[in-house]
Amino acid sequence: RLGVCYYPEQWPRERWAEDARAMREMGLSTVRIAEFAWSRMEPSAGRFEWEWLDAAIDTLASAGLQIVLGTPTAAPPQWLVDAHPDVLPVDAHGRIKAFGARRHYCFSSPSMWAASERIVTAMAQRYGQHPAVVAWQTDNEYGCHDTTLSYSPAALSAFRRWLAERYGSIEAMNEAWGTAFWGVQFLSFEHVGFPVGQPTSALPTHAMDFRRFTSDQVVRYNRMQVGLLRRHAPGRPVLHNFMGLFGEFDQHEMGQDLDIAAWDSYPLGHVDTAATFLSETERQQWARTGHPDISAFHHDLYRGIGHGRLWVMEQQAGPVNWADWNALPLPGMVRAWTWEAFAHGAELVSYFRWRQLPYGQEQMHSGLHRPDGVRDVGGEEAAQVAKEIDQLTAALSATMLDTARADVALVLDYPSLWMAQIQPQGKDMVGFGVAIRYYSALRRLGLNVDVVSPDADLSAYALVVLPQSLHVCDRLTERLQDCRGVIVAGPRAGSKTAGLAIATPLPPGPLRSHLPVRVRAVESMRPGRAYAVRTDAGVTVGHSLQWRDLIDLDPTPQGQEVQVLERCEDGWPARVTSGRTDLHATLVNDDLLQQWMQDAAHRAGLQTMALCAHAPGLRLRRRGALQFATNHGPGAAKLPVPAGVPLVLGSATLPPGGVAAWVVSP
Amino acid sequence: RLGVCYYPEQWPRERWAEDARAMREMGLSTVRIAEFAWSRMEPSAGRFEWEWLDAAIDTLASAGLQIVLGTPTAAPPQWLVDAHPDVLPVDAHGRIKAFGARRHYCFSSPSMWAASERIVTAMAQRYGQHPAVVAWQTDNEYGCHDTTLSYSPAALSAFRRWLAERYGSIEAMNEAWGTAFWGVQFLSFEHVGFPVGQPTSALPTHAMDFRRFTSDQVVRYNRMQVGLLRRHAPGRPVLHNFMGLFGEFDQHEMGQDLDIAAWDSYPLGHVDTAATFLSETERQQWARTGHPDISAFHHDLYRGIGHGRLWVMEQQAGPVNWADWNALPLPGMVRAWTWEAFAHGAELVSYFRWRQLPYGQEQMHSGLHRPDGVRDVGGEEAAQVAKEIDQLTAALSATMLDTARADVALVLDYPSLWMAQIQPQGKDMVGFGVAIRYYSALRRLGLNVDVVSPDADLSAYALVVLPQSLHVCDRLTERLQDCRGVIVAGPRAGSKTAGLAIATPLPPGPLRSHLPVRVRAVESMRPGRAYAVRTDAGVTVGHSLQWRDLIDLDPTPQGQEVQVLERCEDGWPARVTSGRTDLHATLVNDDLLQQWMQDAAHRAGLQTMALCAHAPGLRLRRRGALQFATNHGPGAAKLPVPAGVPLVLGSATLPPGGVAAWVVSP
Amino acid sequence: RLGVCYYPEQWPRERWAEDARAMREMGLSTVRIAEFAWSRMEPSAGRFEWEWLDAAIDTLASAGLQIVLGTPTAAPPQWLVDAHPDVLPVDAHGRIKAFGARRHYCFSSPSMWAASERIVTAMAQRYGQHPAVVAWQTDNEYGCHDTTLSYSPAALSAFRRWLAERYGSIEAMNEAWGTAFWGVQFLSFEHVGFPVGQPTSALPTHAMDFRRFTSDQVVRYNRMQVGLLRRHAPGRPVLHNFMGLFGEFDQHEMGQDLDIAAWDSYPLGHVDTAATFLSETERQQWARTGHPDISAFHHDLYRGIGHGRLWVMEQQAGPVNWADWNALPLPGMVRAWTWEAFAHGAELVSYFRWRQLPYGQEQMHSGLHRPDGVRDVGGEEAAQVAKEIDQLTAALSATMLDTARADVALVLDYPSLWMAQIQPQGKDMVGFGVAIRYYSALRRLGLNVDVVSPDADLSAYALVVLPQSLHVCDRLTERLQDCRGVIVAGPRAGSKTAGLAIATPLPPGPLRSHLPVRVRAVESMRPGRAYAVRTDAGVTVGHSLQWRDLIDLDPTPQGQEVQVLERCEDGWPARVTSGRTDLHATLVNDDLLQQWMQDAAHRAGLQTMALCAHAPGLRLRRRGALQFATNHGPGAAKLPVPAGVPLVLGSATLPPGGVAAWVVSP
Ligand SMILES: [Zn+2]
Ligand SMILES: [Zn+2]
Ligand SMILES: [Zn+2]
Repeated sequence: RLGVCYYPEQWPRERWAEDARAMREMGLSTVRIAEFAWSRMEPSAGRFEWEWLDAAIDTLASAGLQIVLGTPTAAPPQWLVDAHPDVLPVDAHGRIKAFGARRHYCFSSPSMWAASERIVTAMAQRYGQHPAVVAWQTDNEYGCHDTTLSYSPAALSAFRRWLAERYGSIEAMNEAWGTAFWGVQFLSFEHVGFPVGQPTSALPTHAMDFRRFTSDQVVRYNRMQVGLLRRHAPGRPVLHNFMGLFGEFDQHEMGQDLDIAAWDSYPLGHVDTAATFLSETERQQWARTGHPDISAFHHDLYRGIGHGRLWVMEQQAGPVNWADWNALPLPGMVRAWTWEAFAHGAELVSYFRWRQLPYGQEQMHSGLHRPDGVRDVGGEEAAQVAKEIDQLTAALSATMLDTARADVALVLDYPSLWMAQIQPQGKDMVGFGVAIRYYSALRRLGLNVDVVSPDADLSAYALVVLPQSLHVCDRLTERLQDCRGVIVAGPRAGSKTAGLAIATPLPPGPLRSHLPVRVRAVESMRPGRAYAVRTDAGVTVGHSLQWRDLIDLDPTPQGQEVQVLERCEDGWPARVTSGRTDLHATLVNDDLLQQWMQDAAHRAGLQTMALCAHAPGLRLRRRGALQFATNHGPGAAKLPVPAGVPLVLGSATLPPGGVAAWVVSP
Repeated sequence: RLGVCYYPEQWPRERWAEDARAMREMGLSTVRIAEFAWSRMEPSAGRFEWEWLDAAIDTLASAGLQIVLGTPTAAPPQWLVDAHPDVLPVDAHGRIKAFGARRHYCFSSPSMWAASERIVTAMAQRYGQHPAVVAWQTDNEYGCHDTTLSYSPAALSAFRRWLAERYGSIEAMNEAWGTAFWGVQFLSFEHVGFPVGQPTSALPTHAMDFRRFTSDQVVRYNRMQVGLLRRHAPGRPVLHNFMGLFGEFDQHEMGQDLDIAAWDSYPLGHVDTAATFLSETERQQWARTGHPDISAFHHDLYRGIGHGRLWVMEQQAGPVNWADWNALPLPGMVRAWTWEAFAHGAELVSYFRWRQLPYGQEQMHSGLHRPDGVRDVGGEEAAQVAKEIDQLTAALSATMLDTARADVALVLDYPSLWMAQIQPQGKDMVGFGVAIRYYSALRRLGLNVDVVSPDADLSAYALVVLPQSLHVCDRLTERLQDCRGVIVAGPRAGSKTAGLAIATPLPPGPLRSHLPVRVRAVESMRPGRAYAVRTDAGVTVGHSLQWRDLIDLDPTPQGQEVQVLERCEDGWPARVTSGRTDLHATLVNDDLLQQWMQDAAHRAGLQTMALCAHAPGLRLRRRGALQFATNHGPGAAKLPVPAGVPLVLGSATLPPGGVAAWVVSP
Repeated sequence: RLGVCYYPEQWPRERWAEDARAMREMGLSTVRIAEFAWSRMEPSAGRFEWEWLDAAIDTLASAGLQIVLGTPTAAPPQWLVDAHPDVLPVDAHGRIKAFGARRHYCFSSPSMWAASERIVTAMAQRYGQHPAVVAWQTDNEYGCHDTTLSYSPAALSAFRRWLAERYGSIEAMNEAWGTAFWGVQFLSFEHVGFPVGQPTSALPTHAMDFRRFTSDQVVRYNRMQVGLLRRHAPGRPVLHNFMGLFGEFDQHEMGQDLDIAAWDSYPLGHVDTAATFLSETERQQWARTGHPDISAFHHDLYRGIGHGRLWVMEQQAGPVNWADWNALPLPGMVRAWTWEAFAHGAELVSYFRWRQLPYGQEQMHSGLHRPDGVRDVGGEEAAQVAKEIDQLTAALSATMLDTARADVALVLDYPSLWMAQIQPQGKDMVGFGVAIRYYSALRRLGLNVDVVSPDADLSAYALVVLPQSLHVCDRLTERLQDCRGVIVAGPRAGSKTAGLAIATPLPPGPLRSHLPVRVRAVESMRPGRAYAVRTDAGVTVGHSLQWRDLIDLDPTPQGQEVQVLERCEDGWPARVTSGRTDLHATLVNDDLLQQWMQDAAHRAGLQTMALCAHAPGLRLRRRGALQFATNHGPGAAKLPVPAGVPLVLGSATLPPGGVAAWVVSP
């Protein structure tokens, strides 16, 4: 299904019906509205104006559109801020953020909480039973514009209460934080401040607790909204539209409260600016197509967070406005991104936005239509996808498109991301870069991947990859025990306790039951430094980069044997294996990483295909009985279609920006 | 005429007469004084001490020097700041700037305004009729050190009043600002804040209004000073010394209040640091000569702002102190810069400064003399110029040097610069870089250029260039209607309304009557990304860089034909033309841009010369009957002197740093 | 002697005895403790808990260890901050730094001063006579984490008092500061603020005085502690552990109050991050060994500051945690660094730290043991050194290792560093880079160097080098008069007065009696710009970089002749000489600098050796009768051992990371 984001409050009322009809004509079935219209719904405290929204909803519904309603809390009105200045968030330097854009609220503000309850309740009471309102979105992009962390007085009080609850006594907190180091014993919970502004970094556990607390605040705030929606809008799924490359709160935890996980997909903004781990070469290479794995990674991630239900709530439909430079999508890419999302299991792809708005901060953000109302390239491609979907679904039985569990699970957890940020040890070891390099290696082998939480059932996966699990929690430890597949752990795996100390007695901590080794020390290498990686036979197969865990093999009384598969030129193990578990003691170049993943996949009984050999942008993704292929690359790609199998979409030689699909025997 | 900047308050009184005599001996006729001496003239509130200044002026006058008096408001005394802390400006983070350097005042401070009126009045009353005081300078370099924008309480009040006047009602302002976007309706003018400190950027119109307001404040403040000077110093021209590469207030508007526009020319500081759009190669190439077009551009700009009357108030005379690295001018360059200024119509070139001061922030800033009083290289060159001027003017009739209108007008407007900064869309599309690249292309063709305001009479120009006119105002639209020459518009031309929304129905907005096309979208390209530019015949002639306007040709019922002259490799038009108007849909490499400008010039009936073919630093400038040539390049340049025409300055083979002139038939 | 840093308060009491025994077994004789344990010693104001420290000291002493006690003032307890918030330092933007890490105190806080007196007195009274407590360390790394400069109200009051004392009257201060420039006359001392936050930089003398004041505050604070220790712990030497590449207060001045100068040596952190003057190539080249001259430079510097008594209080023993990237020392380097320190005269090398702590900010900082208690590589190497020392000292008489004065003195002064920072004129002319390049050139010639203060007796040195003496004070002028050796001055030498004005009449100021030249101007060159340097014969011998002093030769009535040895391609002198003094008018490439220093050394009658010809990392250092050699380079180095002389340490072909020594005839 296709949809679109629409803002009736920004267009003359006369235009609504016409727009609605055009949406249907283009083949769109869904429209998301209202997520920034708080000041229109509630122009002053407690006074509601529903007439315009009633009319908008009815107009859209009359045209046969299904409506996703957004709660408008991302845009608190000025009267609220004016009456309750504690609504405003505060930055790490103590500066209050100002009204005048969006997301100007602190998740710990009691006034914001109360006002949110009132508007969400009122809205849900009014439209909760409306037959055309098929789903609800809470707020919009929690954490956008660096608004997750707030350093307000309200946040400080809440943090202190949170700590008091967590530790019971200040002695316990001092013990847990390790205040014996540098002698910074705290006198009471009331004496605890934020972990910023010290002459040098605060205690890691202090910092980590503040991250956990902040994440809890966001999750709790969302849970409040979800609860109200469930009460007043029963039977309607609730979702949130997450962002890409974002990890400032625990999205797995929030996912527990949602029915669907949606995300906002802007492939070109990611490549140009947001994906800081890309090299300049990669930015140039994928400037107009997006990186072939970054969107896919997020589809697979959010499908997991949504318990299998994935929506793309905002899909880039042309140049965006917020990257440093904003490229034009290669012709065909809007279609390709849409099909790619469906291939990864999306139920809905909703374009941002119906029509480019000629004013406001996003005036240079394109949509399906130009500001003068004429359909733009993205609109044409959306219409084409709509037709193709009709044809395809007519030809197939519905169950043929059921998304199945992948063979490979890649474990991602948010606390580990925070830990890497607080204790990077190597300046480039922060963020999503490592996880996406691993994911990419798997995808270049043609494998389907589920990105899963540390809580996920791993028992049926053939291959489980932990690219960056600094902390392996008890739950994950159990899950790994249940796993009967091959396990591959990357550098730093299991290196930290929940409180961000070094795992006892040494890393890889809980993974030592799988791999009886000890990480005696680590080395991070600045860009340009590398060690040759060699086999036992002395053949150089690649090089070690960025990070090395220096591993001692434990004496193995239980007869558990550890084998060193490759070593760095100076002898330190590069990759070790024991039983069904591999440990990568270092990051390596992309080709060698692909080889290592292929080796693990083969041991796991999986078939692989080296897709990039001749087409660097070719990727496959299987959904149900269909094998999809997309080509993000600069040249045409010859598809590995079995002889005699006809394509149900596209052609066997895939042009740049092309998409194809064929039926595989289930 | 030559002059110098002098600070009697910094030197022992015994030295004044001797210095004055030496100035005359060097051939200087003018001396600027007093622009930082407020605390000496008014040591406490309302108590004036004129004796020292009387003596200084008399001493200088006795030696036959003409005096330019500067009002001292760039340096408010501590007693003023102490009594009225609201004088101090506030930065974007709300931090009050401190007393202790210069320019520590907010243009909106009522106390500063009152104190300024008092000192300017007192000074003008005392010296307004003095026969030796031939001109007045208001303040010094308005806006230097990032002091244009102030975020003080006084500025906020004034901004709110300004908005109330502009919009009448808050509803009108909300409408104009487009607060329907993200629902940020303002409750009243008293609820409006600064457009900074929001979680993300403020509304573009909010930001734009604050820029317009701030510009108005500076212009009004200067107008107040000019008014007082006109009353008490009748008949003396009033000027301000503007800076290079500066656009934070509308200098065209301020020019309306002035008799002369002066500017402060520091070619090497520009190349090393201030001209952020230069590549590292360019910085190295022009390190010791200055860029061959940047000073020239400013001469042509300020000649326009001064209604034809241009002074260089401060001319670099040796290494400066404020760039990241401070190169030594190539021998001869001080002379060359001086002649270059005269070639561009300057009436006066005044060196900064008479003698290097061994203490203070600018102790490493050289002058005509070393700190020990010995004449420095710059002083020798100034003396040489003085002699050359005498010889040259003796040989010519005065009218032979009258500056005439150029054949080419390049339109520059300040609001467009602010718009590009607020909505850059491509990170490198900000500042003077684009305008100067266009200017440079014209100058490399040997053309004389007037840099003009959007208000200038364009009817007589053969060629009118709009390199960066994001907003084409009504006035400019009319002026372009009156123009009978060839018009060339660069990327983004006409793309924005006065309020910084997208032009309706689409860009190029008002230019669509000249060129019936629509810019359906734009693309910005990060450094390194480029599209080949090809002719219809498929010949690659260059490449497209930084920015593309994606153009649709309109159906042309009126029979107005649009021709695509070149296209990018993927088919989008690179340059289109219709009637007498060209539109560059993209920025291109320097050589292709020069070719395009040559093509337009030829269609305009202008003769061109490819100066850079063998001498990259050679430039010509005609003033009256004289053709001047300067060589900023590393090698000697053979001049295009017609056979049999003798040189009145320099030689036909111009060494690096050389200057020459010959008479052309008028 | 070898030692280690130990934190009994961080480990269970049961472990102390075992650790102490293991220290002795490893061959360590000394242990430093307590420098962050204030909150353990004085858990609330005036209530002391000594029992645990008594026990720790006794346990360590019983094992035969000598104890260095640190005063714990680097870590003020929360109760102090809570009762006296003025303890907290304030940054340049006026933000108060928070409790929660270390060094959260302002040197000007009266409350901090009083509390410091109390704890130091109490500690010294209790342990001052303890036989095992052999030395005292004041505080820890004064100035670490950018805490030297504080902008608190207390600092402001103290600064004003300091100014009033220095100048007597505000008129005198205005005169000295040159407030005639920009007319910033101050009304009274009470009107003086900090030299930060002005629209542009403050008066250089204002800034310089604030640096001098701040330095005085740190020195006074330390003097207070030293005084209390001398009273209550008589006969015990007092030291401070300084940092590398640090110059924010005058360490020579503090050295006057100390018996020993200790420093904390982290060679790999320096190379990766702290030594900002290194090129990327150098960072890569020395990533695992440290730069071959940076640690050596500091040994030679602090040996001078300690009046010949040098300790390394913290020696890197494995990867650190605080650089951007943290490399693994090359095997052997911990041993090599230790021997290198001894070769430079260190009496003690104390490793940081006994055991890696699994929690806290430094959890990734390695020690002699891993967190699980197993001895790490650094521990093995330390044990090896301990054995080697025993063998070596058994074979030699004690006096054979007496450190003698070197033949070469390199003068370093802290005020000149501040002056370069306040008035850089070239962006890369700041910090230790220039001094270390000169030092390096000398060391590559095999010369022993003393790094000395401007106050040092220079009469007996054969060669005296002033690489970066912007200010040549009266004392240094006298010392240079007494010097009978060759003097080499680098660029900017003698260019500034004590108050940071240009030296009168021109630079090199006081050095003009040695070298009758005048620096008429200077040029700084951005990276990439260079002038060829040529001999009289026109042979290019290298190139001029970064900086040029443009020199005029004075008429020399006294018959003092100045000879230009080399010139830049455009004729300006590159190196001049007169009598026994050379002036380098420019920085040059490393090879040419080495040649110049060799030339000067030969004229000084010194023998040199071009060590780097084949082994870039080879360095020699003579201590008493022993010639030591270390190899920081990637390949083996053939040592210049005289035929027939046996090695007392290592082998004649030195592997990477190797160390050797042989006896030379005294
Ligand atoms: Zn967003
Ligand atoms: Zn200026
Ligand atoms: Zn430190």
